[in-house]
Amino acid sequence: MTTLDRFLTGDRVALAKVISFVEDRADGYDRVLSRIFSGGKAAYRVGLTGPPGAGKSSLVNRLAVLLADQGLKVGIIAVDPSSPFSGGALLGDRVRMQALYGRPEIFVRSMATRGSSGGLAAATKDVCVVLEGFGFDIILVETVGVGQIELDVASVCDTVVVVFVPESGDAIQAMKSGLMEIANVFCLNKSDRPGAERIKAELESILDVHRQVRLVAKGSPPPWETPVIPTVAIRDTGIAHLWEAVFQHRQYRSQADPAGFRKARARSDLLLSLTELTHERLERTLLESDQLNLAVEQIVSGQADPYTIAHQLFDSWRRG
Amino acid sequence: MTTLDRFLTGDRVALAKVISFVEDRADGYDRVLSRIFSGGKAAYRVGLTGPPGAGKSSLVNRLAVLLADQGLKVGIIAVDPSSPFSGGALLGDRVRMQALYGRPEIFVRSMATRGSSGGLAAATKDVCVVLEGFGFDIILVETVGVGQIELDVASVCDTVVVVFVPESGDAIQAMKSGLMEIANVFCLNKSDRPGAERIKAELESILDVHRQVRLVAKGSPPPWETPVIPTVAIRDTGIAHLWEAVFQHRQYRSQADPAGFRKARARSDLLLSLTELTHERLERTLLESDQLNLAVEQIVSGQADPYTIAHQLFDSWRRG
Repeated sequence: MTTLDRFLTGDRVALAKVISFVEDRADGYDRVLSRIFSGGKAAYRVGLTGPPGAGKSSLVNRLAVLLADQGLKVGIIAVDPSSPFSGGALLGDRVRMQALYGRPEIFVRSMATRGSSGGLAAATKDVCVVLEGFGFDIILVETVGVGQIELDVASVCDTVVVVFVPESGDAIQAMKSGLMEIANVFCLNKSDRPGAERIKAELESILDVHRQVRLVAKGSPPPWETPVIPTVAIRDTGIAHLWEAVFQHRQYRSQADPAGFRKARARSDLLLSLTELTHERLERTLLESDQLNLAVEQIVSGQADPYTIAHQLFDSWRRG
Repeated sequence: MTTLDRFLTGDRVALAKVISFVEDRADGYDRVLSRIFSGGKAAYRVGLTGPPGAGKSSLVNRLAVLLADQGLKVGIIAVDPSSPFSGGALLGDRVRMQALYGRPEIFVRSMATRGSSGGLAAATKDVCVVLEGFGFDIILVETVGVGQIELDVASVCDTVVVVFVPESGDAIQAMKSGLMEIANVFCLNKSDRPGAERIKAELESILDVHRQVRLVAKGSPPPWETPVIPTVAIRDTGIAHLWEAVFQHRQYRSQADPAGFRKARARSDLLLSLTELTHERLERTLLESDQLNLAVEQIVSGQADPYTIAHQLFDSWRRG
């Protein structure tokens, strides 16, 4: 029996192997994905992002247990664009494993893929496809940080929860990080700390302004009103409320435009795959030949500029 | 006289126009860059990155004034992957303008380019090329946040300063964010606050472990020892010390391997241009034809999987 056969019979060891195969972009990984792809039946993907120390892992753990208690199968992907030195999110994993030990409905996976942010978003999306193919109902994608990569990774999800804490600084920072556009739900964790009321009020007033300036076409459904949900993850407070908000957003999306929702996801997944494929083929060609080294010599010696060279290399690659 | 002619005579209005042209990826922007490219004479690029609220803007302002006082021409690029809603780093710009008003040696530019992180790194690199062509000696690139995009953007720089504050949380977070690999200099700003000594000691001990586990080939130069520099930017404390550390890193790089240093930069700049060019051409082809929409229909209706489709679209594009 091959790993893929065992995967299809529900073997968790095979699941872990297939994920590694896909995450590592091993030779033939896209053929495997092509076989696993579940077509119509997709899990609901929820992204959780926010600054380090906001308690995202605790929130994700609590949510997972809540959903598992409802009989749902939950896959967790912890995305950590970490360093070769730290070797991935090992510490986080160990802590997590203890909390979720003995829950067969929950599967946890850390991703420490390096490389470009586009590549990481693509790999995350593919691991979602693997989990969907395995039969998970809900996928929770946790990303560390609030930079562009987290936004890219979150963008492969259907609902994005942005996690804040009262110490996150004034709400203007939220706007600056471009989180307003990507957040479907704001979660104010550690909401028992000083300043929680103030930051919640600030966020809500910014969201209010945001809503007022937004143009809504006549006859189109009313826009989603991003809620701010207070939680205290370590005390298991507000978790059901948070999930309710996610669930409402899910219903909002599928009611507003059911076909459009699925198409938008298929489209963005496809573009991610295509971009990665192109990038990989181009780089392979360049590295196999000596063209790149020659080009660098020409630039450094002042014989050519990098822009003209880029066009030349592209044209020669495209001609094959 | 064309804008480019005026640019070449040192006209600042023309400089601003050329930057916008390049930042917006206007038609023919790479031909402009190709003409501006200064070849051998490159400015030294210093990246400053760190969490929101760490005081990066104040640091950059103080550094710029220090360098201008030494007779150097300083270009500042503030990279802010901001939202369509906030409309860029307008607030930050205004505050900055006041501080640097009347300093002709200093030029400030905000970049609020949206889109992929690869694209933003490429655009930042190109704005550096424009500033180099205009004759700036030092370019300070400030990025907001500590995510992958900030690392990507910082990677177009020759020396990367990672800014921390005592409140940044325990030093383990630093490792997790992959900052250890990219930081050439750590700057502990607001170092007059409680906890500064502790976080500095923690960071230094992590750096120490990092150094010990690193393999150094026999005969190769000793590895760079990343310093931790305490500053209080708003009181103008430690700025000269910070610059000294940057300058030492610059000397270290050019002594360790002068040719390798220039080649590595040319290589990474070229790869960024090439990736962007490929991506742009592929997307244009797909959007001009109806291929993408048809592919999405096939995926949503379950007739095909996205991985097979991606290969088909790629092959048909490559065949032209």
